[in-house]
Amino acid sequence: MVEKFAQVEKWVSSAQESYFEIISGADTAVEVDDDKWTSNHGGHGRTLIFQNGKTIEKFAVNFSSIMGNKLPPAASSKRPELAGRPFRAVGLSIVFHPTNPFVPTAHENIRFFSSTLDGEEVWWFGGGFDLTPYFGFKGDCKRWHKSAKNMCEKFDPHIYDEFKKNCDEYFMIKHRNEPRGVGGIFFDDLNRWSFDECFEFTQSVNSCFSNEYFTIFKNRCEHEYGQVEKNFQLYRRGRYVEFNLVYDRGTLFGLQFGGRIQSILASLPPTVSWPYQATNLNQSFEKKLMEEFLTVNDWVN
Amino acid sequence: MVEKFAQVEKWVSSAQESYFEIISGADTAVEVDDDKWTSNHGGHGRTLIFQNGKTIEKFAVNFSSIMGNKLPPAASSKRPELAGRPFRAVGLSIVFHPTNPFVPTAHENIRFFSSTLDGEEVWWFGGGFDLTPYFGFKGDCKRWHKSAKNMCEKFDPHIYDEFKKNCDEYFMIKHRNEPRGVGGIFFDDLNRWSFDECFEFTQSVNSCFSNEYFTIFKNRCEHEYGQVEKNFQLYRRGRYVEFNLVYDRGTLFGLQFGGRIQSILASLPPTVSWPYQATNLNQSFEKKLMEEFLTVNDWVN
Repeated sequence: MVEKFAQVEKWVSSAQESYFEIISGADTAVEVDDDKWTSNHGGHGRTLIFQNGKTIEKFAVNFSSIMGNKLPPAASSKRPELAGRPFRAVGLSIVFHPTNPFVPTAHENIRFFSSTLDGEEVWWFGGGFDLTPYFGFKGDCKRWHKSAKNMCEKFDPHIYDEFKKNCDEYFMIKHRNEPRGVGGIFFDDLNRWSFDECFEFTQSVNSCFSNEYFTIFKNRCEHEYGQVEKNFQLYRRGRYVEFNLVYDRGTLFGLQFGGRIQSILASLPPTVSWPYQATNLNQSFEKKLMEEFLTVNDWVN
Repeated sequence: MVEKFAQVEKWVSSAQESYFEIISGADTAVEVDDDKWTSNHGGHGRTLIFQNGKTIEKFAVNFSSIMGNKLPPAASSKRPELAGRPFRAVGLSIVFHPTNPFVPTAHENIRFFSSTLDGEEVWWFGGGFDLTPYFGFKGDCKRWHKSAKNMCEKFDPHIYDEFKKNCDEYFMIKHRNEPRGVGGIFFDDLNRWSFDECFEFTQSVNSCFSNEYFTIFKNRCEHEYGQVEKNFQLYRRGRYVEFNLVYDRGTLFGLQFGGRIQSILASLPPTVSWPYQATNLNQSFEKKLMEEFLTVNDWVN
């Protein structure tokens, strides 16, 4: 248990470190908050916040490694036999809120859980990534999904379809019957292959996310926009908050577990608006977003 | 059942109507959205939104009257014997988000539920009000609570303490161990007196809220402020969203029941910010708010 956990933890920590260079390079004006923390539950972590840049409004890259005496409900709903068991968990949580409404918001999560049952080690990986455009580009969504598919196919010819379906089901704002974005892939309880293969897959997920997102980011971050487009982004960011606070398992896990609040809620957008009704202009932007992006289900064919 | 329900519904509707004049009078520049709606579940309602005024950023006064085949979990947690029973519910939900950070945010809810069990009518009232200052005034908090106490004492000498305690317990942002504001009163399952007395109490709650809030509003809405105070308000409004989306029973009831989303979420602030960390200035404003307001438990002695 300790060896596998230490191996994943070391990698997650170095993966976080690599975002330092990528993000600082993507916006040289960005300010960085680098917070190492320890919790009184015995956990530790490092929260990197990049903000107030030219093109980066708030990018959060959060590493955490925790241990607990009781696996909380949000993490054990699919493994009731482990509810209340001691566990260790390490994860990387990333949410990028760019300044420019023509650049999509993106999210990645990577996590590894380790526990024991009847003296045996039980471990699994989870994670994935998804993309949330405001003013979308079909080519971006296609490359996002095609890259995910290519990456998945190196491991198993069927998992892209499976993990994309998970993602579509998970990132659904149920009370609005509206997807959070154009999706990506999402997996949990991954231990179907050997530990080494599952670990390699998880590493590939992270590389794929990082490569594809920053390609899109660089292509779109100089796109012209005005206050009307910004207002639409602020309005749509409200949906992001609704999803994260009402449905997101990672957020609920953190709040239930009593984690470090400013790290857990670093995923929330820096500025948001909830007008009662969308303006006519926002309604027309939204119609296009819905019809051309949020109701499209197949980006790879 | 029908007669009591109709009587309460008529009053709730007229109580809503009375806010039209009060709010339009408090800010003559305010714009009004007056939306009557019917739902495919057989409910109907009227959402009044006052916004973009000189002193009113977004005031929502929402009337709804619904019926359902199955009382949802959020409404039946204290009455498990009624879970899944047909019911009718009528309510008034009010949230005031003023422009000026020296004016507190305020919330009131009034609700009446009616159901049947073994052929007998079962009814109860619920509701209450609470106040959320950003830059508070002790005198305002004292008058808020003293008026609530005086109002309560006309019905029962002990209920102010009971209902204030309910309010303090209910409006707690658990993951931050922080109250949402300075409280007020909150009650549920109220049927301890005759129907007429419970109804009269509920009407008094509404009058008390309206009188006290608009007194405070008028006294503070011309208070000078600048961008730094506004920024603090936007930052603290994030707490309001966190409470409403993570804990609020009324909001969860609405989302579970499949209500009219823009009416349910009309309670959310028009503009909000989630910086990763409060600025030094916001930290100093927050320290004062915490020490002088949010940790004070007794406003009447």
